[in-house]
Amino acid sequence: MDFSYDRRTLELRERLEEFMDRHVYPAEPVLAAQLADPARPRWEIPPVVADLRVEARKQGLWNLFLPGEHGAGLTNLQYAPLAEITGRSPHLAPPALNCAAPDTGNMELLAEFGTAEQRERWLEPLLDARIRSAFAMTEPEVASSDAANIATRIVRDGDEYVVDGRKWYISGAMNPDCRLLIVMGKTDPAAEPHRQQSMVLVPREAPGVTVRRGMTVFGYDDADHGGHAEVTFEDVRVPAGNLIGEEGAGFAIAQARLGPGRIHHCMRAIGIAERALELTCRRVLDRTAFGGPLADQGVIQDWIAESRVRIEQLRLLVLKTAWLMDTVGNRGAHTEIQAIKIATPRTVEWILDKAVQAHGAAGVSQDTPLAALWAFNRTIRIADGPDEVHKRSLARRELRRHR
Amino acid sequence: MDFSYDRRTLELRERLEEFMDRHVYPAEPVLAAQLADPARPRWEIPPVVADLRVEARKQGLWNLFLPGEHGAGLTNLQYAPLAEITGRSPHLAPPALNCAAPDTGNMELLAEFGTAEQRERWLEPLLDARIRSAFAMTEPEVASSDAANIATRIVRDGDEYVVDGRKWYISGAMNPDCRLLIVMGKTDPAAEPHRQQSMVLVPREAPGVTVRRGMTVFGYDDADHGGHAEVTFEDVRVPAGNLIGEEGAGFAIAQARLGPGRIHHCMRAIGIAERALELTCRRVLDRTAFGGPLADQGVIQDWIAESRVRIEQLRLLVLKTAWLMDTVGNRGAHTEIQAIKIATPRTVEWILDKAVQAHGAAGVSQDTPLAALWAFNRTIRIADGPDEVHKRSLARRELRRHR
Amino acid sequence: MDFSYDRRTLELRERLEEFMDRHVYPAEPVLAAQLADPARPRWEIPPVVADLRVEARKQGLWNLFLPGEHGAGLTNLQYAPLAEITGRSPHLAPPALNCAAPDTGNMELLAEFGTAEQRERWLEPLLDARIRSAFAMTEPEVASSDAANIATRIVRDGDEYVVDGRKWYISGAMNPDCRLLIVMGKTDPAAEPHRQQSMVLVPREAPGVTVRRGMTVFGYDDADHGGHAEVTFEDVRVPAGNLIGEEGAGFAIAQARLGPGRIHHCMRAIGIAERALELTCRRVLDRTAFGGPLADQGVIQDWIAESRVRIEQLRLLVLKTAWLMDTVGNRGAHTEIQAIKIATPRTVEWILDKAVQAHGAAGVSQDTPLAALWAFNRTIRIADGPDEVHKRSLARRELRRHR
Amino acid sequence: MDFSYDRRTLELRERLEEFMDRHVYPAEPVLAAQLADPARPRWEIPPVVADLRVEARKQGLWNLFLPGEHGAGLTNLQYAPLAEITGRSPHLAPPALNCAAPDTGNMELLAEFGTAEQRERWLEPLLDARIRSAFAMTEPEVASSDAANIATRIVRDGDEYVVDGRKWYISGAMNPDCRLLIVMGKTDPAAEPHRQQSMVLVPREAPGVTVRRGMTVFGYDDADHGGHAEVTFEDVRVPAGNLIGEEGAGFAIAQARLGPGRIHHCMRAIGIAERALELTCRRVLDRTAFGGPLADQGVIQDWIAESRVRIEQLRLLVLKTAWLMDTVGNRGAHTEIQAIKIATPRTVEWILDKAVQAHGAAGVSQDTPLAALWAFNRTIRIADGPDEVHKRSLARRELRRHR
Repeated sequence: MDFSYDRRTLELRERLEEFMDRHVYPAEPVLAAQLADPARPRWEIPPVVADLRVEARKQGLWNLFLPGEHGAGLTNLQYAPLAEITGRSPHLAPPALNCAAPDTGNMELLAEFGTAEQRERWLEPLLDARIRSAFAMTEPEVASSDAANIATRIVRDGDEYVVDGRKWYISGAMNPDCRLLIVMGKTDPAAEPHRQQSMVLVPREAPGVTVRRGMTVFGYDDADHGGHAEVTFEDVRVPAGNLIGEEGAGFAIAQARLGPGRIHHCMRAIGIAERALELTCRRVLDRTAFGGPLADQGVIQDWIAESRVRIEQLRLLVLKTAWLMDTVGNRGAHTEIQAIKIATPRTVEWILDKAVQAHGAAGVSQDTPLAALWAFNRTIRIADGPDEVHKRSLARRELRRHR
Repeated sequence: MDFSYDRRTLELRERLEEFMDRHVYPAEPVLAAQLADPARPRWEIPPVVADLRVEARKQGLWNLFLPGEHGAGLTNLQYAPLAEITGRSPHLAPPALNCAAPDTGNMELLAEFGTAEQRERWLEPLLDARIRSAFAMTEPEVASSDAANIATRIVRDGDEYVVDGRKWYISGAMNPDCRLLIVMGKTDPAAEPHRQQSMVLVPREAPGVTVRRGMTVFGYDDADHGGHAEVTFEDVRVPAGNLIGEEGAGFAIAQARLGPGRIHHCMRAIGIAERALELTCRRVLDRTAFGGPLADQGVIQDWIAESRVRIEQLRLLVLKTAWLMDTVGNRGAHTEIQAIKIATPRTVEWILDKAVQAHGAAGVSQDTPLAALWAFNRTIRIADGPDEVHKRSLARRELRRHR
Repeated sequence: MDFSYDRRTLELRERLEEFMDRHVYPAEPVLAAQLADPARPRWEIPPVVADLRVEARKQGLWNLFLPGEHGAGLTNLQYAPLAEITGRSPHLAPPALNCAAPDTGNMELLAEFGTAEQRERWLEPLLDARIRSAFAMTEPEVASSDAANIATRIVRDGDEYVVDGRKWYISGAMNPDCRLLIVMGKTDPAAEPHRQQSMVLVPREAPGVTVRRGMTVFGYDDADHGGHAEVTFEDVRVPAGNLIGEEGAGFAIAQARLGPGRIHHCMRAIGIAERALELTCRRVLDRTAFGGPLADQGVIQDWIAESRVRIEQLRLLVLKTAWLMDTVGNRGAHTEIQAIKIATPRTVEWILDKAVQAHGAAGVSQDTPLAALWAFNRTIRIADGPDEVHKRSLARRELRRHR
Repeated sequence: MDFSYDRRTLELRERLEEFMDRHVYPAEPVLAAQLADPARPRWEIPPVVADLRVEARKQGLWNLFLPGEHGAGLTNLQYAPLAEITGRSPHLAPPALNCAAPDTGNMELLAEFGTAEQRERWLEPLLDARIRSAFAMTEPEVASSDAANIATRIVRDGDEYVVDGRKWYISGAMNPDCRLLIVMGKTDPAAEPHRQQSMVLVPREAPGVTVRRGMTVFGYDDADHGGHAEVTFEDVRVPAGNLIGEEGAGFAIAQARLGPGRIHHCMRAIGIAERALELTCRRVLDRTAFGGPLADQGVIQDWIAESRVRIEQLRLLVLKTAWLMDTVGNRGAHTEIQAIKIATPRTVEWILDKAVQAHGAAGVSQDTPLAALWAFNRTIRIADGPDEVHKRSLARRELRRHR
C-alpha cells in the first residue's frame, strides 16, 4: 500500500492549485451572477464555464480523469488528489477540466466498450467538450436499485433497435448541448437477471425522444450543469450499430462504468468537505456571540475536530481504493469501492450539516455554497444504488468468509 | 398533567379533518401546477390559497391559533392537535386557516402589545387576511442569536423614529400583499444588553425600505408563502406612535412572541413527521426490489419503528408544554419550550431523511413533498436561536438546581 | 390522557422520598461495605436489605407494584412515579419494598394464574419476602427471542411432569433464599408455535435441579440480588398440580407477565437516569480543569441539556403507557409497551455514558454507581426480547395500518 | 505515504499468526479456568501467561514493541500489524510477548530517559519480564486531564526526594511482581504550568507506599494483568538519583511516553474489533430465529457492513500515524496521534456493542470475550486524556491554520 504522490501528480497538483486560485475561485461569483440573470436561457451552460475550459486546456489540465490513450492517462491514485482539489469548487472546476459527471463515465464507457465508429462519432466531440452526453438508467416507476426491475424495452427490429420507456433524473440532459443519451433497457426479459439488459446510444434528436421536464434536487434545478431530465422514449429507432458491446451485456457494462464513477464522486466529495471545514473555521473565527468568537465555543470546536478526524479517515480509504483499483483492478477492489460509496456521502453530509449550522441563515442560503453542496451530496446516498443495497452486498461478502 | 382532548377540540378536529380530506389534500396538485406555471407573477400567493381561505372561513376554521377575543380563543392544548393536522399539508393548510407564520406571531404581538390604533390599522386586516406581514429581526452581518449583536438602529427624531439597517430572511416579505414589517433594532446601545432593543411598525411602502432579493432555503425560494426577503432600511421614518410597547422593550416582546411561535412550529412539525411516515409506509408496501416489497426489508422496518417511537415521545413533550403554557404561563414553561425547540426539528429531520431514502430519487424531487419539507424543517434548527444556544441555556438552568 | 398524580400517589411519593432520604441513600455505603467484605457468604443477600425491608413494611411501603387484593392495589399510573423514585437507588430501594424483579413478575403471575394451592404455597411467602423466586426462560443453546426455539422439555408422566433442559441468566437463583423456579419448556413440540410451551413450578431443591454457576454481566456477578444462575434440569419431577394455567398456555402467560415487568423496568430506569444526571451536575460543578469548572465547558453543557430533554420525553411515554394499560389493558397498550422497551434502555444508556465520561476514572469504578447501572441497563436491550425483535414487530403493526 | 509491509514485517506476522493459532487461542480457556479457580491467589498473574512467555521468547517474538537496541528495533509501521494481531487476544498475547501496557511505556521511558544505572536496575529485568512495573499519574481528587491539577508532591530533601500523594487506577500495581512505580508529582508548583511536574522511580516496597485496593472497571478487577490499584504515598523517600530526566521535565516526558502508548493501544484495538466482527459473523450464521439464520436479517447485515467499513478507515488512519511517527517523529504526528486516540475507542466500542447485541445474553457474559473487551475499550475514551480534551486541542490547531 503505497499512497505517495509521484512526481507527475505533484506537478499537476501544483498546476491545478494555481488554476483554482487564479481562475476558478474568482469565477464563482461570476457563475452566481450569470445564474441569477433572469434573461439567461434557463438550461444553457453559463458562459463562464466555457471560458474556464479554454484556460484549463491551455494549462494541460484536460481530461485528467481518463486513463489510457484517449485521456491524460493517469492512474486512479494519480487522479485522486487532483479530483479532490476540483471538488473544492464542484460546480466549476470539474466541468472546466472536462472532468464532470456524467460525461466522464460516458467517455470511459465509449473508450472501453465503444466500436471505432462509436468512438469517432461520440467520444471525440465529448473529449473536446464540443457536445455533452447523459446516461439514462433510473426509472420513475420502479425501484431502480434492482436492475431486474428495469421496464424500458430495447427490441431488435431488423437493422434497428426500438426503444420504449420512461427515465428520469437523467443528469445533464436538459442542456441543449447534450446530444447523446446512453440508454439502458431490456433486450431479453426472459434471460437470467443480469443478462436481460443492453445499452444503446440514442441521439437526443431521434424521433420519439421527449425531454419532458427538469427534476429538482431539494429545490435546485442544477441548471448550471444541465439539470436532471425526465425523458420518454416512444418507438425510438436507432441503427443496430448503436448497441454498446453485445446484447445482454448492459448490466456488466453499467457495473464497469460505475466503479470509476463512484471513486471520482468520492474524491471530489472530500474536496467538498475540506472546503466546508475551511469556510466553517473562517466563519467561527469571524463571528462573535455572547462575549467571544464562535470559535471559542466547545460544541463548535467539537464539530471542527470531528470533521478533521472524519475527513482523514475517509481520504485514506479512498486512496487505498484507488491504489487497489490500479493494482488489482476494479473487480478486486469491489468491497472497497462499496465501502467508499457507503462512507463518503454520509461523512460529508455530517460535515456539511455542521458547516450550515455554524453559518446560521447564510448556511441555507445562496450566499454560501453549503446548502447546494449538501443537496448534491445527499443524492449520492441514493444515486447509483442506495446505501442499504451496498451494505447488504458488503455484509454478505463478509459473512461468506466465515461460512 | 391532563392532555385529554375536550369536546371543543374533538369537534374542531373532526371538522378540520374533513376540511383536509375534502379541500386541502385535493388542492396540493393544484398548488404544484400553479407554482410550476412560468406565467405566474413569481412572488404572488397562488390563487388556490385564497380559494381555500374562503372555504375555511365558511367552516369556522379561522384564526384558530389566536387566544383571546380576537381569535378562536383556544388554549394551547386545544390548538395543538389542530395545528398538528395542518402540518400534514404545511404549504396549504396553515395559510388556508390564517394560521401561518409569520403572520400568526405578528397578530399575537399586536393583540398583546399593540395600541388600539395599531390594532385597528394592522391587526384587523391581518385577522381578515386582507394583508400579510413580516417580522424583521435577523441580520446578515452578525450572529443574530445574540440580541446584543443587532446592528439596526432605531433613533428617535422628534415625532418620528428613524430606522437604518439591513435584515434578511424576512419571511413573507417578497409577497406583494405583505404591507407591514415589524422591525427590531437598537434604540439605546448604551443600555443594559436586554434593554437596548425596541420594535417599530414599518409600512412596507415607507420611503427608504428596499426589498432587495429573495433568499433561498436549500434551493427553494418559498414563493408560495412570500419567500424570504433581504431588506434594507435607509433613513426610514415612521411616526413615534409606531413603536410597539415602550423603548427598550424589544427584547422582552420578542421573547414573548417566540414562545407560542415555537410551539406552533413544533405542533405542525409533528404533522409533517406523520405525513412522512405515512408516505413511507405506502411507498415501501408498493415498491419491490430483490424479490419482495421494500416493506419486508429489516432496515426499512427499523426506520418505521424508530419513526413511530420518536414521534410518540415528541408529541407528548409538545402536549405537556402546551398544557404547561396554559396552566403556568409561557415563562413557567420556559424549559419545556426550549426542550421542544431542541427536540422537534432534529427528530422530524431524521424521519424525513429516512422517508427520502425510502423514496429514492422521488424523495429529493418535486414529485413528493419530502424534500421541501426537509429543507423547511432544517431551518428550524437555526431560526429563532440555533439549537446550541437553547441547549446552553437549558443546561445552565439544570446546573443551577444543583449549585 | 390524564397523567396527573392523584392524592394517594402524592401521599405515597412523599412517604417514599422520606424513606429514601432517611434510610436508603444512607444504606448505600453500608451495602458497598457488606459486599466488599471477603468473609461474607458470596451469594447471600447482604443484611442491610433485610433491615430496610423491616423499615419499609413499617412505613406501609410494601408490595406497591402489585395491583389487586394481594398487593397495594395501585394502578400503573399510580405506581409509575413511585417506581421511578426507587430506581434512583436500584440496588436497594426495590428489594427493600419487595418490588424487585424477578419476584415481582413471579408474584403477578401467581396472583393472576396460580391456583389457590399454588398461591398459598408460593405467593404468600413471596409477598412476605420470606422466600425468593426465579423465572427460568432463557437458554444458552438457542436464540431465546424466538419462543419456538425453546429446547427444554416438560413431559407429562402420570401424575407428574418431567423437566429436562438447560437455562441460564436465571436472575436471583444463586441466592440460597430462592426456593422456587418457574420454568418454561415445551409440552407439545408438534402444536402450533405459540401453543407448544407450558410453565411449571419447580422447587429449587427438587432432585435433578443443579445450580451450576453465576453468570456475569460485564464483570458484575450481581451477588447482592441473587446473581444470574446457569441451571440444569435433569429428569426433574414435579406433581402435575405444579403446572401454571393449562398445557400450551406458557407463551401467553409469559407475554402477560412481561407487560408489567417491562413498564416497571422502564419506570425505574428513568430514576436511574435522573440519578445519573444529578451526579453529573454535581461533579462538573465541583471539578476544575483548564481554568474553570467542567460545568462551564460547552460540550458538557450539551450533555446535560440533552439528558434533560431525553428524560422528559421518555417519562411522558412511560406515563402514557401506564395510563393506557390502566384504561385499555395490556393488550391495548401493546405498541406503547414495545415503544418504551425500545426507547428506554438506549436513552438511559446514553445518559449513563455521558455521566461516566464526566466522572472520568471514577465513572467506571466501584466508587460511583454509574458503571454498575450502565451494565445493568445495557442488558435490558437484550433481555426480554432484543430491541430488534420489538422494532420489527412494531414496524409490522405500523405497516398494517397502510395496507 | 507508503504503508506496505516489508519483508521483516511479513515474516514476523507469519510467525506471530502461527504462535496465535498454536499457543494463544488454545490458552484462552486455560486462562479462564485459572481465573475462575477460587484457590488462586487473587492478584498473581495466572501461570498460563508465564508458559506463553517462554514459548514466545523461543520464537523470537519478544519485546517487539521496543525500537532501538534494547528491543526488537521495529519501526511503528512494522510493529502496527503485529500489535493488531496480538489485540485479537488482548489478555494473553501482549503479555506473552512482553508487549503489554503499562510495562511497554515504562520500558520506553527508561530506555529513552533513564540513566545507565536506572536502566540496569529496572529496564533489564523488565525486558526479561522478571519484574513488572506501573505508572502512577492519575489522582482521585482532581481532574487529571489537566496536568496543572496534580496534587502529589515530590520535594527535594538533601539527597532524597520525598513523595506524598494519592494515586489510583495504577494499572498492574496489584500484581505482587510489580516492583517499580513511576510516579508523577509536582516539584515546583510555582513554575510555569508544564514545568511544575517531575517523575521519580519509587520501588513498591519503599516505606510509606501503601497499595490500598483494586479499582474495578465495569465490574472487572482485571486481576489477570495486575488490576488497577489505589496507592498512597506518605513521606516516601527515594534517592535523588531516582529522578527521571531533570526536575520540571515530568510533563514533557509523560507526553513523550504517551505517543507510542496511544498508537499501541489503537493498533491492538483494531485487533479487538476484528475479533468481535469474526465472532459476530460466526454467531449469526449459526443461530436461527423466526425461520432463518440471524445472518439473513437486514439489521444484522447492516451492523456487519458498518463494522467492516469503519475498521478499514480506522486501520488506515493508524497506519498513516505510524508512518508519520517513523518519518517526521512523534511531535510531527501530534494531530494524527490525537485523531486515532479520538477515533479508535469509539469505533471499536460501536462494533463491540453490536457484537454483544448479536450474541444476546452470551455477549454480556464471561463465556465470550466481548463484555470484558467492551469494558476495557470503554476506559480508553477516558484514560490518557478524555476524548473531549483531545478534540479541543485538535480543533484549536485546525483553527490556527485559518487565523
